Amino acid sequence: MGQFLEEAEEIIRRCKTLAECTEEPGHITRTFLSEPMHEVHRRIRGWMEAAGLRTWVDAAGNLRAVIGNGPRLMIGSHLDSVPHGGAFDGVLGVMLGIALVKRWASQPRDWGLEVVGFSEEEGVRFGVPFIGSRALVGDPVMDDGVLDAIRAFGADPAQLPQAAIGDDVKAYLEFHIEQGPVLEMNRLSLGVVQTIVGQSRYELTFRGKANHAGTTPMNRRSDALAAAAEWIRSVEWIANERPGLVATVGRLEVAPGAANVIAGLVRASLDVRSDDNAVRAGAVKRILMAAQDMVDWRTVTATYEQVLDVPAVPMDPAMVRALRTAVRAAGYKAHLMASGAGHDAMILARKVPSAMLLLRSPGGISHHPAESVLAEDVEAALAVGRRFLDNWRPS
Amino acid sequence: MGQFLEEAEEIIRRCKTLAECTEEPGHITRTFLSEPMHEVHRRIRGWMEAAGLRTWVDAAGNLRAVIGNGPRLMIGSHLDSVPHGGAFDGVLGVMLGIALVKRWASQPRDWGLEVVGFSEEEGVRFGVPFIGSRALVGDPVMDDGVLDAIRAFGADPAQLPQAAIGDDVKAYLEFHIEQGPVLEMNRLSLGVVQTIVGQSRYELTFRGKANHAGTTPMNRRSDALAAAAEWIRSVEWIANERPGLVATVGRLEVAPGAANVIAGLVRASLDVRSDDNAVRAGAVKRILMAAQDMVDWRTVTATYEQVLDVPAVPMDPAMVRALRTAVRAAGYKAHLMASGAGHDAMILARKVPSAMLLLRSPGGISHHPAESVLAEDVEAALAVGRRFLDNWRPS
Repeated sequence: MGQFLEEAEEIIRRCKTLAECTEEPGHITRTFLSEPMHEVHRRIRGWMEAAGLRTWVDAAGNLRAVIGNGPRLMIGSHLDSVPHGGAFDGVLGVMLGIALVKRWASQPRDWGLEVVGFSEEEGVRFGVPFIGSRALVGDPVMDDGVLDAIRAFGADPAQLPQAAIGDDVKAYLEFHIEQGPVLEMNRLSLGVVQTIVGQSRYELTFRGKANHAGTTPMNRRSDALAAAAEWIRSVEWIANERPGLVATVGRLEVAPGAANVIAGLVRASLDVRSDDNAVRAGAVKRILMAAQDMVDWRTVTATYEQVLDVPAVPMDPAMVRALRTAVRAAGYKAHLMASGAGHDAMILARKVPSAMLLLRSPGGISHHPAESVLAEDVEAALAVGRRFLDNWRPS
Repeated sequence: MGQFLEEAEEIIRRCKTLAECTEEPGHITRTFLSEPMHEVHRRIRGWMEAAGLRTWVDAAGNLRAVIGNGPRLMIGSHLDSVPHGGAFDGVLGVMLGIALVKRWASQPRDWGLEVVGFSEEEGVRFGVPFIGSRALVGDPVMDDGVLDAIRAFGADPAQLPQAAIGDDVKAYLEFHIEQGPVLEMNRLSLGVVQTIVGQSRYELTFRGKANHAGTTPMNRRSDALAAAAEWIRSVEWIANERPGLVATVGRLEVAPGAANVIAGLVRASLDVRSDDNAVRAGAVKRILMAAQDMVDWRTVTATYEQVLDVPAVPMDPAMVRALRTAVRAAGYKAHLMASGAGHDAMILARKVPSAMLLLRSPGGISHHPAESVLAEDVEAALAVGRRFLDNWRPS
């Protein structure tokens, strides 16, 4: 190891350079086809073309680049960011793809390589994620706002069908930072994704009765916040029972929200994820029952509404095997894991065998200016990518 | 009983008439010296003068009215409302005072009666309560905003010292709706206040670490909301242990407040009340310790800041005895209780022997358009007031 350190450092430099392209000076904020995306494309196209790739921007604003002919392997990730995000989420995967072109070109290949920088994955600008990758699988987002944004960026929504990949794309590989602490906890550089977790989202409403905080005795209260608080404890207990299961109440709104008034209404979000759909369904059921159970002794009602129900997406077993083989061959531990975050690979998996390699996130920090990646881990990913390219064959 | 029903109904009608005077059509919203207070004064002065009272508006915007000479008994309450409030909170006590003038005048008295409608009690317009009654005890609120409002209303802040009561005011009596469910629970019309509860308010901050809700395992979280939820349960448990003690978390703000992000920061209000200062202090201590205790096993910190610390205010024992005697003589049960809400009587008690009679609040509802009072309970208050006047002597 150590032979690709210089290259790894160049990749990190490129990510930091792209972080300058932002809607908000002083922060990294780059939503779907926002103004700074033009400059991002300009810089990346320079690097892509220098590597020998032929580049174009498709009708969904994805930056596409190909080298070679015939059936091809696609390597990609996204170029947008969350508001006040970090420099590596998404962008790193595209920079690694470009860096691997050199290896592809180092010997004659009867297959091509495509590197793609997706225009959108985070779902920030229009509340819809995966606008970029959905166009590639023939399921483009057709909201008026999205189409207007495509036109404003200088592309033609009428060409969206042509953005879809054809039969010549044989597989999809994505490099991405983990955005969590698991690899760091286990002192590992890399993780091979076996499954992208499924996700359930609910919106719960606890209705009690707003009342005077001074004159209402404890045993005469219908305190919606006390009920919600008890339920949040249950959410935590239930999630703690199964490794790999996570459940989060991240948003809570309390009305009327005055210090001297008992809460009459609480709205809470619930997010439950697991790589096992049955485990997730079981946890959701118990969590919703826990909210109902309180009605028995508190004079508070709980209702809920499902907002999202996305099943877990397994990565392609043959691709996972090939990736693990490459990880081991490069001298690393081939740690299998679930991805707790959604990624473009979930979408590509609908059409082509897909796999993902996660890179350790120092401190587990992501979606934050302090987001980082270690040069030694980028080096590891490069070494794995080279092995993978050398072993891959279009099926 | 039943002999003052017509009078009671007239009092309720007057309260409803005054409810038409509002800053927001369709709601009852009447803050300190707001425009509709002019019309409130106009109507009440009409009734006061018809009853034989001499009226004036003092420099704090209080509506004052006197009948007779020499030492006097003051009966009063407030004329302002909370936003979207009810028709009886405050106003009812002034209407009862006016109705009792007839009884005062029914026989020769060597003492006078003053009826006062305080300009402000709720603390809505300037975040400072008791602007009206504080002027009467020589502790006027001198904020620039308040002084400007007084001028805009047509009064002269330079005259504030003259609004203070002199030695001729010998006692203060206030009638007020309970604003809670205790009398209704006990099937009582009236309650005699022994103490106005003391109140502690704190602002707590729970600091954890905002993190990805999908990629952060349960055992690696610093979830500020999960910590706050556990603490809210403790608040409830601690308050449940002592009758008469109440503790409320009514406001809770969660940041960043997204469904897919673990809460990094929670700010919560805490309101603790009891008629026993030692009980209140003990409960506050245990509640704050409960927040600190969690630091031991959660990687979340809790800090707090005291916002308010008002000791309990006992009513004057001789006045309470006289009021209980009057209640019994009128044929009602003389139920002693604490007032969980603050009232102008707390302020007047600094200068003169004070007492309060609470009237049952149907459904415990107050600070709400559905706030009401039963004619039979107003009738009871009238009967008690008459007995009280007949027995009272300036000391």
